[in-house]
Amino acid sequence: MENFLEELKLRKEKVDEALNSYFRSVQIPRSSGIHELKESIEYSLLRGGKRFRPALCLLLAEAFAVHPKRVMPLACAVEMIHTYSLIHDDLPCMDNDDFRRGEPTNHKVYGEATALLAGDGLLTEAFRCLSEGYEKEPELGLKLVMLLSSAAGLVGMVGGQAMDLKAQKEKISLQELNLMHALKTGALIRICVEGSAVACGLLPDKIELCRNFGQQLGLAFQIKDDLLDSMETKIELGSFPGILGLEETQKYLEEVTQSAQNLLKKLSAEKSLLKDLVEYNLHRKI
Amino acid sequence: MENFLEELKLRKEKVDEALNSYFRSVQIPRSSGIHELKESIEYSLLRGGKRFRPALCLLLAEAFAVHPKRVMPLACAVEMIHTYSLIHDDLPCMDNDDFRRGEPTNHKVYGEATALLAGDGLLTEAFRCLSEGYEKEPELGLKLVMLLSSAAGLVGMVGGQAMDLKAQKEKISLQELNLMHALKTGALIRICVEGSAVACGLLPDKIELCRNFGQQLGLAFQIKDDLLDSMETKIELGSFPGILGLEETQKYLEEVTQSAQNLLKKLSAEKSLLKDLVEYNLHRKI
Repeated sequence: MENFLEELKLRKEKVDEALNSYFRSVQIPRSSGIHELKESIEYSLLRGGKRFRPALCLLLAEAFAVHPKRVMPLACAVEMIHTYSLIHDDLPCMDNDDFRRGEPTNHKVYGEATALLAGDGLLTEAFRCLSEGYEKEPELGLKLVMLLSSAAGLVGMVGGQAMDLKAQKEKISLQELNLMHALKTGALIRICVEGSAVACGLLPDKIELCRNFGQQLGLAFQIKDDLLDSMETKIELGSFPGILGLEETQKYLEEVTQSAQNLLKKLSAEKSLLKDLVEYNLHRKI
Repeated sequence: MENFLEELKLRKEKVDEALNSYFRSVQIPRSSGIHELKESIEYSLLRGGKRFRPALCLLLAEAFAVHPKRVMPLACAVEMIHTYSLIHDDLPCMDNDDFRRGEPTNHKVYGEATALLAGDGLLTEAFRCLSEGYEKEPELGLKLVMLLSSAAGLVGMVGGQAMDLKAQKEKISLQELNLMHALKTGALIRICVEGSAVACGLLPDKIELCRNFGQQLGLAFQIKDDLLDSMETKIELGSFPGILGLEETQKYLEEVTQSAQNLLKKLSAEKSLLKDLVEYNLHRKI
């Protein structure tokens, strides 16, 4: 597990470099209020984060012996969308969080209006990043725009957040909880795997297997997050332990983990770092 | 002028139909909280609005004898981005408006959290709309993603909104005011013209002229808006009449209008409805 975390860190550094370079190249007109907006974007995007999603893109490419730079624009775009969703989630009208990763949230530092715009800007820049990164391969580029906008939109992440708003007010079923997570957090994780598979030029049947693997991986991460949360605080009603109980949730996690490993075998990727990633999730303590 | 308004209405109806059809085709999972989100999106997108931006796309295509359906996905995407910006602008942390077009604003009906998500969802769906609409012409599609994301992003609309936040707190120069409007409202109007020119397959030198025409048109609309505002209420400091005075602002409007008309001549489009649009702006009372 420590070896894997070391490997993850190496990918995180590459992603950090690419994200830094993207925003360094954005030319801001002199003496404008845009500097503060850019600063607030960089505050949330460039300082922290495990970079789990972009690293997943890189690991997928490596598992199929493709150079990671091939998936880098996708990796950066996904991280921008993930970061925008965190900034908006933290706003007073949503979760009203003052701290994230031990630091004041974006709106606590820059004010609500700028934080709102920082999120809007990041979401928009994600698509500019894709369109520039794949400019020379427009068919691939447009396909990735379609996959990413679907995963992040109304029947994706944003839809999942709307389901979550409802789930905080009323009891939901296991089926609805599964759907909510599949959209809210699962879709973006799935698109890392599926989109990278497309970018790496895998054949359609392999892309389909990758898509399924991405789905199982996203679900496994969510179940584990719910388990870890329920150790720390009381078990929330609208969580897997709240609906299934702790023991059944642990079993569910093991099943989904096994299913993910089986998909990796079918992909002949059972010796890649993706396998270690699935293992890591099963045993992680944070 | 009345004839032109009648023509504008015909284009508006086509755009309304296309936007309706786009959201009808979005399949929402049963029994989820996504229905309310979709409803809130439709509340802001499908009921009102002059559809000025999408109509401009259609008029550009017509001026070059291209079928309007060629620019329709771009027209819809621009309107989605315009609408998301209005929803977010109305939020309490921004302008805190309770009414728009005589109806309660989105967050007044659906709450702030849902309104925030409705804006995020619309922005994301704009890019899905582009990627689906131009799926069979990926080179064009990806180019439009690049143009639209640039016009709407950090060095576009969102950046202009950030400048506006600053302008509300401190005095700005005419140069800064011009830049603010060029980004905040101008970029999206410009992209209607430039993007449609690209979609219509015009040659590079004509695209460049269209881009300039779009810029002048956006500026002319903003100057006129400022003039109309200053008739209604007191003259705001950070407006064209506030900096130039009423008389000079009227002259400025006439100059910019003339410049737009000259560009139309260079484009051999001086007999198109685009000419009437420029005229209409000069004389409109609302």
